[in-house]
Amino acid sequence: MAMNERLIHEFKSAIRNIPDFPRKGIMFKDLTTLFRNRVLLGTLIEVLYDYYRDLGITRVVGIESRGFIAGSALAVKLGAGFVPIRKPGKLPAGSYRKEYSLEYGSDAVEIHKDALDDGDIVLLHDDLLATGGTSRAALDLIRLFPVKKIYINFIVELKFLNGRQLFTSPEDIYSVISYEA
Amino acid sequence: MAMNERLIHEFKSAIRNIPDFPRKGIMFKDLTTLFRNRVLLGTLIEVLYDYYRDLGITRVVGIESRGFIAGSALAVKLGAGFVPIRKPGKLPAGSYRKEYSLEYGSDAVEIHKDALDDGDIVLLHDDLLATGGTSRAALDLIRLFPVKKIYINFIVELKFLNGRQLFTSPEDIYSVISYEA
Repeated sequence: MAMNERLIHEFKSAIRNIPDFPRKGIMFKDLTTLFRNRVLLGTLIEVLYDYYRDLGITRVVGIESRGFIAGSALAVKLGAGFVPIRKPGKLPAGSYRKEYSLEYGSDAVEIHKDALDDGDIVLLHDDLLATGGTSRAALDLIRLFPVKKIYINFIVELKFLNGRQLFTSPEDIYSVISYEA
Repeated sequence: MAMNERLIHEFKSAIRNIPDFPRKGIMFKDLTTLFRNRVLLGTLIEVLYDYYRDLGITRVVGIESRGFIAGSALAVKLGAGFVPIRKPGKLPAGSYRKEYSLEYGSDAVEIHKDALDDGDIVLLHDDLLATGGTSRAALDLIRLFPVKKIYINFIVELKFLNGRQLFTSPEDIYSVISYEA
């Protein structure tokens, strides 16, 4: 547990805070400074692998585009396949679409209709949980398939934004790093 | 070599051809059907790892967003850091930008100014080499840093589009799968 706290401190120290990005008033958590560090990137994937290795994950689903980074590396480490969820119009074959509300307007995400198989054990991954709109829409897309189980993972969770409340099974959500404020 | 040809046949069989995407007359190579396959995804990363394992790669640079998928998995496997090159306005900190021409109009890619270190041995990765505009612009961004060496990798190369001619050191380019027509 002590090692864990030290690690989390190391991860947090490697994350760059960017004020007023992408909009005024938002303190953006920039993970590129963690991903560029070979030791911390490798350690992060080890931590995720240790958490999920015995759960029988058959596919990791990553949300475009930052969720592709740790998502695909983790998929390979777990021996799972990787499936992208993308912005509208990016996936070339037949897709399901889910729209969701933003503070101003709406957005949507898509998944290929043949992306998952019956009985898959899915890990949905994104880099960050903020207000949760995108990842909840992604979860709704995965639920269109008769998969066996869905786990959800974030590298960073901004707890003060209460994104977790959008999910009915919060026990299936694991975030490596949390910010309380 | 026989095994290699068998493998390439397996990879090609797993790639989906999509006519007229994203525009009429283009036969799109959809790699999502390869990535979703746990065995082929793992094998692809093994093939890339075997090719690059002894070259001292310190950072893999992936081009948004499909280049993040195998790029980051390979970075972790090689024990390297991962650096994203993104579309304009997506990177939150100070960035270099490189514009490039398209058939109609222009586009640009960006990289963080602190993404690479002096002496890095860089592997630039994207999923596909077509006409080469984006990857050549990405290479120009990497050349702004005093790195020691730059290798370039694609999963798929469309040889008939001659994208390779945009690069002055084609010997440093490795494509796993080539299409002659």
